[in-house]
Amino acid sequence: MNDSEREHQQVGSDLRLEGLHGSLADPAMASMNFLNEVAIRYPDAISFAAGRPLEDFFDFDEVHRYVDVFVAHLRQERSMNEAEAKRTVLQYGRTKGIIHDLVSRQLAVDEGINVTSDSIVVTVGCQEAMFLVLRALRADARDVVLAISPTYVGLAGAARLVDCPVWPVRSGPTGIDFDDLTAQATAARSAGLRPRALYVIPDAANPTGISLDLETRRKLLSAAAVEDLLLLEDNAYGVFAGKARIPSLKTLDTQRRVVRLGSFAKTVLPGARVGYVVADQRVAEGDGSGQVSLFADHLSTIKSMLTVNTAPLAQAVIGGALLDNGHSLLAANHREIELYQRNLRLMLKGLESRFGTSAAGDPQVTWNTPSGGFFLTLTVPFEADDVLLERSAKDYGVLWTPMSHFYAGNGGSHQIRLSLSQLDPQSIESGLDRLSALVKYCS
Amino acid sequence: MNDSEREHQQVGSDLRLEGLHGSLADPAMASMNFLNEVAIRYPDAISFAAGRPLEDFFDFDEVHRYVDVFVAHLRQERSMNEAEAKRTVLQYGRTKGIIHDLVSRQLAVDEGINVTSDSIVVTVGCQEAMFLVLRALRADARDVVLAISPTYVGLAGAARLVDCPVWPVRSGPTGIDFDDLTAQATAARSAGLRPRALYVIPDAANPTGISLDLETRRKLLSAAAVEDLLLLEDNAYGVFAGKARIPSLKTLDTQRRVVRLGSFAKTVLPGARVGYVVADQRVAEGDGSGQVSLFADHLSTIKSMLTVNTAPLAQAVIGGALLDNGHSLLAANHREIELYQRNLRLMLKGLESRFGTSAAGDPQVTWNTPSGGFFLTLTVPFEADDVLLERSAKDYGVLWTPMSHFYAGNGGSHQIRLSLSQLDPQSIESGLDRLSALVKYCS
Repeated sequence: MNDSEREHQQVGSDLRLEGLHGSLADPAMASMNFLNEVAIRYPDAISFAAGRPLEDFFDFDEVHRYVDVFVAHLRQERSMNEAEAKRTVLQYGRTKGIIHDLVSRQLAVDEGINVTSDSIVVTVGCQEAMFLVLRALRADARDVVLAISPTYVGLAGAARLVDCPVWPVRSGPTGIDFDDLTAQATAARSAGLRPRALYVIPDAANPTGISLDLETRRKLLSAAAVEDLLLLEDNAYGVFAGKARIPSLKTLDTQRRVVRLGSFAKTVLPGARVGYVVADQRVAEGDGSGQVSLFADHLSTIKSMLTVNTAPLAQAVIGGALLDNGHSLLAANHREIELYQRNLRLMLKGLESRFGTSAAGDPQVTWNTPSGGFFLTLTVPFEADDVLLERSAKDYGVLWTPMSHFYAGNGGSHQIRLSLSQLDPQSIESGLDRLSALVKYCS
Repeated sequence: MNDSEREHQQVGSDLRLEGLHGSLADPAMASMNFLNEVAIRYPDAISFAAGRPLEDFFDFDEVHRYVDVFVAHLRQERSMNEAEAKRTVLQYGRTKGIIHDLVSRQLAVDEGINVTSDSIVVTVGCQEAMFLVLRALRADARDVVLAISPTYVGLAGAARLVDCPVWPVRSGPTGIDFDDLTAQATAARSAGLRPRALYVIPDAANPTGISLDLETRRKLLSAAAVEDLLLLEDNAYGVFAGKARIPSLKTLDTQRRVVRLGSFAKTVLPGARVGYVVADQRVAEGDGSGQVSLFADHLSTIKSMLTVNTAPLAQAVIGGALLDNGHSLLAANHREIELYQRNLRLMLKGLESRFGTSAAGDPQVTWNTPSGGFFLTLTVPFEADDVLLERSAKDYGVLWTPMSHFYAGNGGSHQIRLSLSQLDPQSIESGLDRLSALVKYCS
């Protein structure tokens, strides 16, 4: 230790931020903290910001019962005795999970996806799934991932932890600008980089609410083959995407191009923190042996160094819920789907009645019309930044999310993400009145 | 995509191992897989290999009851109504956790550690805690950590995920060779590197079973100050370390040198996957503002990008167990402590009766005498490698762990880790008989 270090210690700090990993000094982190902190400071504001699922049907007895249902399944369907069932749910468990077979059946029942259960790794939410895939793909400084912009902040966060640059691809009117996709992949290769994958939320995307149509999905699978990209399909909201559900990318995938990232946080219980990744890609060992392994097994190896396994007890809750609903999340969520759809209708109607009648030539407030999900996008004729959000919370009692947070600060300055998942008809009406007053003030 | 890449695809693989992160091609991973796989192939062998806690007292009703106890606590002690209690346990939760106050009280009650609860981050087992700390400290290619060798494999795994070299420090007769510690730190600095921390398990270490005496602990804290190292104290087994418990490093720490890593997997329930890190270090913001933040808050930021939060439902189980036992893990484990101590006595006695009487000059089998914990070290007059383990399992029906796995392949060739946590008197006697037969064959 030299003198300057000794002196530094004496002024009362033990570490310095610039000596810690770069992710911690990232301005995006400070901005996410700001969003959380505004929500805490204005608890009485009506929130179009929270992306959490409805809590109305949460129930402790139901949670206990799900565990019991799963344990009964272990004893009856898997012929376990009491000691084996206890060991499975309460002891250290299999790294890839204990409900992989139930997840595989859910994917078959709800989406027509046929993957073997050994290509599934059960994870600590979808966030860990993203980390596992990005850690595997970021082999050295040449590796980058592409992501449809605006992008879910969790993807950007996981990428930061493995120092992996995220190259944005424009979404355009259909949800994917294919010219930009080609341009970005080409530019990355020209710079000596390796674009490994494209991250996309095809159904009821966070933050925009957009779903890709079937033609765009097929075109995306072709483009991924041409550019030799994996597609990282995040599908946390597909169950809520509306009646005219479109096949997921993994459903359409015939060439193992798609790594599917999933979550039970929105569809069963956030408090269990269970997600999964489907990774049926074959990996050549590269030792000339001709041996081929499953990508899922390599993700499992990474998981063994990261969290060892996903709490088997938490998996048991999700497993019980799947068993109780014939392996269908659509069935498990019939009440929630109805309420989210009602909220969406009320939001669209409420926006129309407040902003649909401006005289031609007036600055317009416009919005998209998602078929389902938790979110929609509002475009306003003024800058909707963090400063305005603070004023909106303080003076108008309404919270929302500046879309610029999902563009890494490089776009979306006049857009707002509106979330509808935790509202009731009364709060939607009052919230939109408050938003309308804010818009009048700004225009 | 070029021609060779196209051709590669046609031979039936989608990815190549050499294109994935280096941790996946690490020989240490293959060797850990071998250990697991041997145990699966010989299910009838008596196992001195498993490091899992005793399962005898696991009980589903007890787990449900712990959740109920925690919920009652939220309502009575934290004045929550039903909706707030449900939101706390079943919804997305605070990144740093919901049982931080109970963990802080446990540390005070059992160990006399006084830290505020905001310096605690509740994690997905101790493994995630190690990752968070190593990710924070590995800022660039200069950062390395030191670790007492032999080292718990989980530390090496987490370090691999952030490409952080681990420099071994010899343990020597007292558990730490201070000359080697100074030599390694000096060598690292001379090579332009920054040794950031030293990883150590002071109580009933995995894999050796050694506990550091009080003088060694005090000397270690001084050495850490001189070398400006953080001490990463992993204390998963302290509760089981025996009657003459010695203050932990964090108990003795007056200068915030110690980052404490903890786990409830051994002391409450592995199936909940709950651990924690105590990080009360002050971090200077480095923008000249003089602002100081808590290291725990930076670890929380990393966690928000990795797993978002630790399943609140799983935390509720641990919280209930702490509440039910007056915040004491010693109290919660009185039956387990007794059984592990009995097993240790039987192991030491059984080793003495089988190997204590060789004639002078004969090749000796020797062992250490831990005061508690799950492990002890056997030294044998032959190479105890994976090949011998396979033969031991197949021909002698007994499993153990080659100590070389904990030396990154660079030491411990004649040592064996014996685990005692899951045995009963009968299996200890039979297991030692089998081990004795193996030793006779090898000598």
